[in-house]
Amino acid sequence: MSKIAVYRKEHFNAAHRLHNPELSVEENARLYGKCNSPNYHGHNYELTVCVKGEVDTKTGYVIDTKEISRLVREEVVERFDHRNLNLDTKEFKNLNPTAENIAIVIYDLLRPKIDPKHDLKITLYETERNFVEYPA
Amino acid sequence: MSKIAVYRKEHFNAAHRLHNPELSVEENARLYGKCNSPNYHGHNYELTVCVKGEVDTKTGYVIDTKEISRLVREEVVERFDHRNLNLDTKEFKNLNPTAENIAIVIYDLLRPKIDPKHDLKITLYETERNFVEYPA
Amino acid sequence: MSKIAVYRKEHFNAAHRLHNPELSVEENARLYGKCNSPNYHGHNYELTVCVKGEVDTKTGYVIDTKEISRLVREEVVERFDHRNLNLDTKEFKNLNPTAENIAIVIYDLLRPKIDPKHDLKITLYETERNFVEYPA
Amino acid sequence: MSKIAVYRKEHFNAAHRLHNPELSVEENARLYGKCNSPNYHGHNYELTVCVKGEVDTKTGYVIDTKEISRLVREEVVERFDHRNLNLDTKEFKNLNPTAENIAIVIYDLLRPKIDPKHDLKITLYETERNFVEYPA
Amino acid sequence: MSKIAVYRKEHFNAAHRLHNPELSVEENARLYGKCNSPNYHGHNYELTVCVKGEVDTKTGYVIDTKEISRLVREEVVERFDHRNLNLDTKEFKNLNPTAENIAIVIYDLLRPKIDPKHDLKITLYETERNFVEYPA
Amino acid sequence: MSKIAVYRKEHFNAAHRLHNPELSVEENARLYGKCNSPNYHGHNYELTVCVKGEVDTKTGYVIDTKEISRLVREEVVERFDHRNLNLDTKEFKNLNPTAENIAIVIYDLLRPKIDPKHDLKITLYETERNFVEYPA
Repeated sequence: MSKIAVYRKEHFNAAHRLHNPELSVEENARLYGKCNSPNYHGHNYELTVCVKGEVDTKTGYVIDTKEISRLVREEVVERFDHRNLNLDTKEFKNLNPTAENIAIVIYDLLRPKIDPKHDLKITLYETERNFVEYPA
Repeated sequence: MSKIAVYRKEHFNAAHRLHNPELSVEENARLYGKCNSPNYHGHNYELTVCVKGEVDTKTGYVIDTKEISRLVREEVVERFDHRNLNLDTKEFKNLNPTAENIAIVIYDLLRPKIDPKHDLKITLYETERNFVEYPA
Repeated sequence: MSKIAVYRKEHFNAAHRLHNPELSVEENARLYGKCNSPNYHGHNYELTVCVKGEVDTKTGYVIDTKEISRLVREEVVERFDHRNLNLDTKEFKNLNPTAENIAIVIYDLLRPKIDPKHDLKITLYETERNFVEYPA
Repeated sequence: MSKIAVYRKEHFNAAHRLHNPELSVEENARLYGKCNSPNYHGHNYELTVCVKGEVDTKTGYVIDTKEISRLVREEVVERFDHRNLNLDTKEFKNLNPTAENIAIVIYDLLRPKIDPKHDLKITLYETERNFVEYPA
Repeated sequence: MSKIAVYRKEHFNAAHRLHNPELSVEENARLYGKCNSPNYHGHNYELTVCVKGEVDTKTGYVIDTKEISRLVREEVVERFDHRNLNLDTKEFKNLNPTAENIAIVIYDLLRPKIDPKHDLKITLYETERNFVEYPA
Repeated sequence: MSKIAVYRKEHFNAAHRLHNPELSVEENARLYGKCNSPNYHGHNYELTVCVKGEVDTKTGYVIDTKEISRLVREEVVERFDHRNLNLDTKEFKNLNPTAENIAIVIYDLLRPKIDPKHDLKITLYETERNFVEYPA
């Protein structure tokens, strides 16, 4: 039987700054431009969580989207919503909060909570025009 | 030559209720929550049909999107639009109309109408924040 | 000082049927077409509530959008979400649940809960392409 | 001859914190909830500028949308994009950066740059579900 | 009784070029930039038609959105969809097809078809970021 | 380490006509319908470019989205925006500008500019309801 993918969208708002402390001020400015602005800027992050597996014939679900929603709220929204990613979270104390790294961190937070027989994929919109997908 | 995927979006509005008659009232309530409400609720279903194949050098098309649109109207919209999925359709008389099951039914309705050399994929939005993709 | 308008979007999913019991079967069919389908169909209703007034210099708000959200959940979402508007609600027992009438009912539910010094306006999307605004 | 309204959408990303220094810690927390988080959070602000007037028969325009775009970039985006509104801008040094106040500040920045015979209106989305319009 | 506004969205795709034959080549280039490109460019025009009036107690409608849709298809889509506005339509033979002028032409085509007791308003999106509203 | 996909959306507006000069007038009309209209029509093309690879631990990026944006502007937008694809571009002088063919041309323009270790994928929306993805 073919697998089916189930998607749930959630969102959170956060401040961040792109900065690599091992690089010079000039290289940070060159690499990150406005995203290196010292006092932070922020985004409305739109997060889509995809869980892939077979349909359970009893429930007609792969997984209940309300269950995905609950997990995302507990593991992601509680942690990052209305926070400064660089200052307020242990995950980005020593990790540059690029969209790529945020998506990987979210994947690593959710993966242990999802049944191992299911595949997991994260899509994270930083803006309407910039987004990432992990794993690709 | 690489394949290319062509997508066409259509929509239909329907009422449904999630319910498994083999389970108790309590277990149905626990499993489906508000979606088990006895007198039905409903959705604007947004359906995207993806047909994948090689470009025909004569037409410049994999398949004309107007042809996908015609097929979806004949096979899906005529059947489900402005209907009660549980009461008015033979497809869901004995099948729980979860988003997963609706997507699989739509795939099975369209698959025989699409050239076997082409791949077919269905994406079905039940709400803006809940959707499924089949096969994944 | 000029007034400012504050908007909050919420949503609910419901089943309904358009039908006027004072008209013949034929006239109902002619008037409402597929929307008269006897076993109901449904929609994802997107609701925007607009409250207009002067900015409170202490809070910097006209009204906190979280307060609008709470009111809409208590007065509208609790009442209509995952319900059959015709069968499950007293508001539409004897009132045809057209988008126009649903918007007016929502206005009448919210108006007593909003400070009289503020104007109130309701926008209700029945589908992405059909919506109403009250009062206009 | 009737007037016509011309709209141009732009956007900027910024960090902010809602806080009134004249209120106690407890009252700020009660009033603003998560938006009072000390190290800031952020948003993708979507800004729509509306200019209303009569059509110029020579150009067929009320105002060229490229001209609105240029003004918004010079007066608004240069000033607020990728900034911390509380720390990096003189406009919000002593003004709480609620959506209401940001919209009024943007109006006051653009009004002198728009021909006085034209009306000006600002719509500012803080999130997809919260937005304001000034003047209303 | 307060009025209510009913909206219906439709769309059409067309080619056009902005050009005023009474102006020099240089002034046309300066005024319209890329929009003056001699061999035309094009847009997906998204059109929203708003009809405002009182609710008919018999039908629960101000006007059936299917009736607005039929009118727009007959008067607007048949005329402009998949056409070159400058070359293929009599309306823009001698009128510069700016968004402003297209909206006014559409208003003038629909106004005689709508009950005089109802108000009519046109919103026309030329792109996602540029749109006009008439009358404002 | 798993790969991650980075997406950047851009857009351009263009006129085009679907026509195969090796076919009769009747067959072109039958195949392409309104899209064969002789004086061209047009679209707002929404283009998403996806670059897939491993995250660079120095930058936290697979590729800077500003770099994708710059490439798309130089190679695609400069070439096609506000142009007539059939008349103004060498790419479609002898190639039918279907969505499929435009996507393949854009892929071929961008592929040499993207690091060979990265995968490239193009999504092109011709309208909100018709789009293609290459390679699929």
